[in-house]
Amino acid sequence: MEQLKERIEKHIETIATYTSTPGNGTTRLTYSKEDLQTRNYIKEQMKAIGLTVSEDGLGNIFGKLDGSMPDAPSVMIGSHFDSVPNGGAYDGPAGVVAGLEVANLFYQHNVKPSYPLEIVALVEEEGSRFGGGLMGSRGITGQLSEAEFSDSMDKDGISPKEAMQEIGLDPSLPKARDPKTMKAFLELHIEQGPILEEKNIPIGVVESIVGLTQYDITVKGQAGHAGTTPMDRRSDALIAAAKMISKLPDLAITEGNGTVLTTGKLNVYPNGANVIPEKVFFTVDIRSGKEENIQHVIQQLKEYVEDYQGNGIEVDIEEKLYVQPKALSETVRTLLKEQSEHQNISYCSINSGAGHDAMVFSDFTDVGMLFIPSKAGLSHCPEEWSDAADIANAVEILYQTAKKLTKAE
Amino acid sequence: MEQLKERIEKHIETIATYTSTPGNGTTRLTYSKEDLQTRNYIKEQMKAIGLTVSEDGLGNIFGKLDGSMPDAPSVMIGSHFDSVPNGGAYDGPAGVVAGLEVANLFYQHNVKPSYPLEIVALVEEEGSRFGGGLMGSRGITGQLSEAEFSDSMDKDGISPKEAMQEIGLDPSLPKARDPKTMKAFLELHIEQGPILEEKNIPIGVVESIVGLTQYDITVKGQAGHAGTTPMDRRSDALIAAAKMISKLPDLAITEGNGTVLTTGKLNVYPNGANVIPEKVFFTVDIRSGKEENIQHVIQQLKEYVEDYQGNGIEVDIEEKLYVQPKALSETVRTLLKEQSEHQNISYCSINSGAGHDAMVFSDFTDVGMLFIPSKAGLSHCPEEWSDAADIANAVEILYQTAKKLTKAE
Repeated sequence: MEQLKERIEKHIETIATYTSTPGNGTTRLTYSKEDLQTRNYIKEQMKAIGLTVSEDGLGNIFGKLDGSMPDAPSVMIGSHFDSVPNGGAYDGPAGVVAGLEVANLFYQHNVKPSYPLEIVALVEEEGSRFGGGLMGSRGITGQLSEAEFSDSMDKDGISPKEAMQEIGLDPSLPKARDPKTMKAFLELHIEQGPILEEKNIPIGVVESIVGLTQYDITVKGQAGHAGTTPMDRRSDALIAAAKMISKLPDLAITEGNGTVLTTGKLNVYPNGANVIPEKVFFTVDIRSGKEENIQHVIQQLKEYVEDYQGNGIEVDIEEKLYVQPKALSETVRTLLKEQSEHQNISYCSINSGAGHDAMVFSDFTDVGMLFIPSKAGLSHCPEEWSDAADIANAVEILYQTAKKLTKAE
Repeated sequence: MEQLKERIEKHIETIATYTSTPGNGTTRLTYSKEDLQTRNYIKEQMKAIGLTVSEDGLGNIFGKLDGSMPDAPSVMIGSHFDSVPNGGAYDGPAGVVAGLEVANLFYQHNVKPSYPLEIVALVEEEGSRFGGGLMGSRGITGQLSEAEFSDSMDKDGISPKEAMQEIGLDPSLPKARDPKTMKAFLELHIEQGPILEEKNIPIGVVESIVGLTQYDITVKGQAGHAGTTPMDRRSDALIAAAKMISKLPDLAITEGNGTVLTTGKLNVYPNGANVIPEKVFFTVDIRSGKEENIQHVIQQLKEYVEDYQGNGIEVDIEEKLYVQPKALSETVRTLLKEQSEHQNISYCSINSGAGHDAMVFSDFTDVGMLFIPSKAGLSHCPEEWSDAADIANAVEILYQTAKKLTKAE
């Protein structure tokens, strides 16, 4: 167990060095140089423990241990390895590392599964480079259209296809796989909230994942000189956007039921100190455990934004992502809880406030998810931290669960 | 006159091609490739009409026609040649081109001045690259400290010194010049407002220039995950900034007297759609014809910003620029008006809502300034346009005025 914890720490520390913002958290954009470094590390680790490595047409990484039954569906374990800008070392990689260590336990104990075991490392969950998010898992499950893939662009106008080719990946490979090839998907993730730490419980078995939606809002006004345009002749896109943004949190607060709303990204054009802003682009991210709450906030958001049309201001609103709240597989949840009890690791049921690749898979296969505590509930920031001992606990539970699901020995 | 108009149009059109955003207005940042292209064009034009060309330690360009009196101070005519991002073709270059054509008239008519004539093309008036603005004229008049010059940085962390060296300029040359070397400074500029067009008057003789101040405001909060951080545990830097910005225009409107206030630039950090903003930086530009109005708005701004301190939000406010309102030289104004009358060009007196290099020079030498109409009052946008015939009128007035001031023939 101590050895397992040390291995986990070493993985996390190594992967954390692959950041474009050293000293200021983890910034690992999909298909960047840091993606390639991490990708190479993961592939090496997979090979070292006897897995057969492949990548698909999105650059998702698969390390497969064949089962004794020919053509049987795989039990998959993994998470994503991209990050938000200036994020932490655990959001994503903790789950990839857990998968690697489960496979390592199969390898060390020479466990022979009947169903294949696949360790999965997914791209672009955060959507930090191409927007939208969950791209890797949506691709695998056939929920990413070729048009969306082709038309996406990063802030420099680079498409996923171009970016993949730049690091030697092949976008012409298949992306979607037949759901019949998947028996189950297991994911470990940090909680990214304060609940487990406050309760002092090392494992959360996720019951359901909140639904989430993301809107892009563009406000257009009229540029002009900051000194010569009288206040009453202005159509200032930033003033209109600021008025909207300052009141948006009230929509979530009034809605209640744990509903949250965030404007995380905003760009001003042309962004000169003495030019009245002509255009402002911003995002609105809405999440809730109940679909009716999400729908109600969306409806109010649209009415609210509509109110700002006129007086030289045009507002455009576009849905970029919509994911319903998802309950996870009861069968797998029960297995995870039984294993926790069996290994004397205390656990509780928990809901996930964040979207995860697991929820994308849950429409196509049985999905189980474990949370471990996040220090001070912080995530998406350099201070993000979790205890490797908690990851080791989760690995033990996932190992035993994977043995059952793959019908090993 | 028709020939003069055509020459002016050709200059303006040529310089407009030196933009980093072709098809989307003029973007000519100081010491950029486009600066170098424009610089080379201006220097060639100066040489072709017999001027002696030099550049100072800021890259300001001087084209000198010697006077008959040894060591006499110069009558200077010019403006700046940088632009805001996605600005127009006239703000700045119109005044440089006017200077070139005044010198050309001296050359064509073989006019011999007693005092030297100097055509001046100034850098970084807009402050779009290094902030603050009016850098060229502040440098010449000794109002730019070596520390400010060394410590400035563009958004990529490049200093003016490095940027100058990249295009072959020598930052070690002197910047300030003795005020005793300047007899007068004349500037033509587009109005950048609607007044002359509405009155249908081709020439405005500027009486005074508004004072202006620019503040940088930084709001710090706490980053966090957009899905897992409850609304009541957030310290969202963007929400705090949006609340401030949405109410700031009221300060200027309530103040009245033509006072204007603009937030033109705003950057969010880390700027990810699913990350609660940790830091927001924005600018506040305040202008008024009366200093007491500027001071009163500044005082309210500071109190207002102070109100947002607390609940995990820290606000920092820093003055980047302060320029008092300036009345221009009565002697030169009278000369300009007399020449307009003499040439049967209708004119009116006008105040300038924008800051200009002319106002920086006005503490050190006699300054005169002419405005020409801006189509629809628009400026700092691709639609910015003025009539070359109006520039030609101004050139005629400036030529006659320069002959008087240089005691020509």
